[in-house]
Amino acid sequence: MAAMLPKLFFVHFRETSFVVEEEGSVVAFLCGFKSQTFDDEAYIHFVGVDPSFRGVGLARSLYERFFEAVAPRSVVRAVTSPRNERSVAFHRALGFEVERIEEDYDGRGESRVLLKRLL
Amino acid sequence: MAAMLPKLFFVHFRETSFVVEEEGSVVAFLCGFKSQTFDDEAYIHFVGVDPSFRGVGLARSLYERFFEAVAPRSVVRAVTSPRNERSVAFHRALGFEVERIEEDYDGRGESRVLLKRLL
Repeated sequence: MAAMLPKLFFVHFRETSFVVEEEGSVVAFLCGFKSQTFDDEAYIHFVGVDPSFRGVGLARSLYERFFEAVAPRSVVRAVTSPRNERSVAFHRALGFEVERIEEDYDGRGESRVLLKRLL
Repeated sequence: MAAMLPKLFFVHFRETSFVVEEEGSVVAFLCGFKSQTFDDEAYIHFVGVDPSFRGVGLARSLYERFFEAVAPRSVVRAVTSPRNERSVAFHRALGFEVERIEEDYDGRGESRVLLKRLL
């Protein structure tokens, strides 16, 4: 799982990027940052949880840690694939709302669900 | 070329991400941000120039625009592949120095040349 970690975030967005380790191995991580365009917003870019550690609340606890880290910012955004129903449901359970679905969001022919949570 | 643009940067790092257009088409771009870990540093993440527009100084002008945008920060970092000798030479010509080469820099079995320029 450590091989999936985007190094960039753990160098330049260290205060808003976290890992959970279990016996020395990374079993979950979250990478995010404070928007530099919008002073009141933060963005969660990439989250991973080892399949054998799912269902125990690791992702939720990482999101909550991120919410605390970006305070007093009051808007957190994330995007996910409309095909990833599990991800959409997870975000809803955490208080995110679906703002809209945007075609070709990242310019690569991939639609994205745009998610927003008020803190 | 527009399909290569990482949307994220043009939403949340808009002040430090630029495109060059020619007759309505993107022919070059640069995406970067101000480090949120290091107050005095900025980072150039991704740069692209349409092959038919190479050699006319577009990349150089994008880098110079970035240097101005991140002032008064005094350190700009970037990484590239050691196999990409053209990229290493380009950065040296722009005043970057090679700090070191790091094995498995991004955790994916890929070495990277770590580049640094003082502004």
